[in-house]
Amino acid sequence: MQQPLRIGIAGLGTVAKGVLDILSTQRDLLTLRAGRPLEVVAVASRRAKPDVDLYGAPFSTDVQTLVGNNRVDVLVELIGGVDTAADLVVGALSAHQHVVTANKALIAARGDELINLARKNNICLNFEASVAGGVPVISALARSLAANKVHWLAGIINGTSNFILTAMTNEGRAFEDVLAQAQQLGYAEADPTFDVEGIDAAHKLSILAAIAFDMNIRFDAVYTEGITAIRPEDLEYARELGYRIKHLGIARQTDQGVEMRVHPTLVPEDNMLAKADGVMNALLVNGDATGPTLYYGAGAGERPTASAVVADLIDIARGNQSVARPGHGRPQMLNISDIVSAYYLRIPSLDRSGVFAKVATILSNNGISIEAVIQRERAAKKVDDQTRVPIIILTHEVAESVLDAALMEVQKLPEVYDTIARIRVEHLT
Amino acid sequence: MQQPLRIGIAGLGTVAKGVLDILSTQRDLLTLRAGRPLEVVAVASRRAKPDVDLYGAPFSTDVQTLVGNNRVDVLVELIGGVDTAADLVVGALSAHQHVVTANKALIAARGDELINLARKNNICLNFEASVAGGVPVISALARSLAANKVHWLAGIINGTSNFILTAMTNEGRAFEDVLAQAQQLGYAEADPTFDVEGIDAAHKLSILAAIAFDMNIRFDAVYTEGITAIRPEDLEYARELGYRIKHLGIARQTDQGVEMRVHPTLVPEDNMLAKADGVMNALLVNGDATGPTLYYGAGAGERPTASAVVADLIDIARGNQSVARPGHGRPQMLNISDIVSAYYLRIPSLDRSGVFAKVATILSNNGISIEAVIQRERAAKKVDDQTRVPIIILTHEVAESVLDAALMEVQKLPEVYDTIARIRVEHLT
Repeated sequence: MQQPLRIGIAGLGTVAKGVLDILSTQRDLLTLRAGRPLEVVAVASRRAKPDVDLYGAPFSTDVQTLVGNNRVDVLVELIGGVDTAADLVVGALSAHQHVVTANKALIAARGDELINLARKNNICLNFEASVAGGVPVISALARSLAANKVHWLAGIINGTSNFILTAMTNEGRAFEDVLAQAQQLGYAEADPTFDVEGIDAAHKLSILAAIAFDMNIRFDAVYTEGITAIRPEDLEYARELGYRIKHLGIARQTDQGVEMRVHPTLVPEDNMLAKADGVMNALLVNGDATGPTLYYGAGAGERPTASAVVADLIDIARGNQSVARPGHGRPQMLNISDIVSAYYLRIPSLDRSGVFAKVATILSNNGISIEAVIQRERAAKKVDDQTRVPIIILTHEVAESVLDAALMEVQKLPEVYDTIARIRVEHLT
Repeated sequence: MQQPLRIGIAGLGTVAKGVLDILSTQRDLLTLRAGRPLEVVAVASRRAKPDVDLYGAPFSTDVQTLVGNNRVDVLVELIGGVDTAADLVVGALSAHQHVVTANKALIAARGDELINLARKNNICLNFEASVAGGVPVISALARSLAANKVHWLAGIINGTSNFILTAMTNEGRAFEDVLAQAQQLGYAEADPTFDVEGIDAAHKLSILAAIAFDMNIRFDAVYTEGITAIRPEDLEYARELGYRIKHLGIARQTDQGVEMRVHPTLVPEDNMLAKADGVMNALLVNGDATGPTLYYGAGAGERPTASAVVADLIDIARGNQSVARPGHGRPQMLNISDIVSAYYLRIPSLDRSGVFAKVATILSNNGISIEAVIQRERAAKKVDDQTRVPIIILTHEVAESVLDAALMEVQKLPEVYDTIARIRVEHLT
């Protein structure tokens, strides 16, 4: 039997609790699989939490005691946030301690620097748990698909948004209503901004894209749009057109450059991503050799996330290299206005004769062709003596800048009484 | 730059062609990712194939020239079959050469011995390509889910069978008809026995179960049933009951022992496995920490399989350990008669009053409870002056041996004019 891998855990939140539980309850099995014992030799957190079982590990309220401590081989960073966590991780890596972290904000903000430092010191920095919890998407991209040039990836990488959209779709309920329920169930934070505005997904997407495209982490270059503007009627119209609306992170490598964007997206109903419902995460990766492959499972939660942390620890115990490699270069980043996409449009229109013709003419004059239209009387609503009937249009592919120009014209039509809603459509083939 | 990893390829079939293509066309990208060049220094195959581009690699018709050759670091075994391939791999491992193989029959038959030999010599034996082609299921089980006790796994691991069942479901066509089409499309071999009788899936399942449950490879203990007896009407009734019929490999760890079985299975339509159609493969793994995770993609074909082979090569170039670990012990294997399952039954019955009551009484007397029944006049057929109406029953869970006994009684009823069809039902939760 080899020497144990000596683990120091910084932070005592739910993931830390999960890690402590797994390492203790599965001790024999993990020792067998890792080839050596995984031993927690220290736990540190600014606040003690008497409700978390440390299984006998020594506790300190000073996380710095773990850094440069020659009895700690691996620092598990679970304190969250960016600055303090970065200091801690830089300290550990500089002291030639391996690091495992679940901190996506940290990796999105400081990942390049940390990966380079780890590489320089020939030690591991593993962060499988930072994206999609228990679903091994980083390992898939960095290892299993390493023979592929990845054309694009698209994923449901925020469980909160997926839970909300799924409930809105299946139950016809409004965003605010489902959000309140998600908060009660613990699927959404009291301040849900990070999740529902797409920031959390953008963090994760920037990490995935960097690995897939061998580039630096460019969180700054991610176009981000949340789900707060989605209405139940959009979900209904999408379904009628043969689509589901999912909040996706999409990264694509084109001849013009790399696009990274997080936004609600119409996905064909027979695509596997359309079928990933509730709080589940799913990532679809299109490699040039494999074609599309999908990775699906629980993207958050105490035990799934802890599972990824412990897998990273086992990998270190086995003496394997870190999956993270330094990016090499900064490819051209495409602006959202440069992307080409099909669009779903909901045009809030008064029910007057000729209005659809006007809209169609504007689109046509801008070179935008229409794939499908829904306009029906039973959706009519009478407000202030005027009848409103939304016009729903699915366009063929068009450059976003061209669509923007056309929509400015449509928006000015006297019959259009409110802001036009538009949602991108991806066929993901 | 480190020394190149020097690769010898044995065999020149489609996968070898894919490996040669990827290694050559993506040379720079792979060198970057692997940290060193991946160089094919020799190719050997009993028959030369002038249509395969060797990209300048030296060719020999004697595969033995690769073994013990001190200019070859890794042998890629792609000749197929068991005995000759085993000799070749044993030779290479004994000479301290790493081995990568896509040969599921070899691993199913001789894997334990080969894994132990590789481990003893402290070298790699990688076989990601042996199961599910480009879908990294072995890496998922052996590495990413290593923190989990796996309760069960269930997978569509034979693309041919899935293609046939999908076409039968969507188009209402008969097995023989779709098989002929699959053969034309190249999705099925001229002799389709290995695929449609479940033997190929059983090979793969024995490998997955060994990794998931840390046990030896027990191909001999896999219960195997193919799809040849499935009729279009079964697919239709299943759909009506809210299920799809998929050909699954299922391995489960219970307190009584391990069960491994390959057979057609009714899967709830909202399960992700029910949604994996066509030639695609999908594996659902239920780990105690992650809960269900799914891995989906192309399970065969030149480039997806070659992708897995090259990923294994990159892993060796990076200096990582083999994912394969020797099994430790032979847990109790459950016989198919010991398993507990729900069942779909199609009882070919004459349309006489009281027949359903007789069937229900027999089931009830055997302690088998009924979840759903379909018996309808519009399915009636008149043959030889007798009207036939099948009775479709979905049972609750029951031990297979109990069901067998009950069905023997039902089969003897004078109204039952043909063999009862029964298909197992799995809820996979």
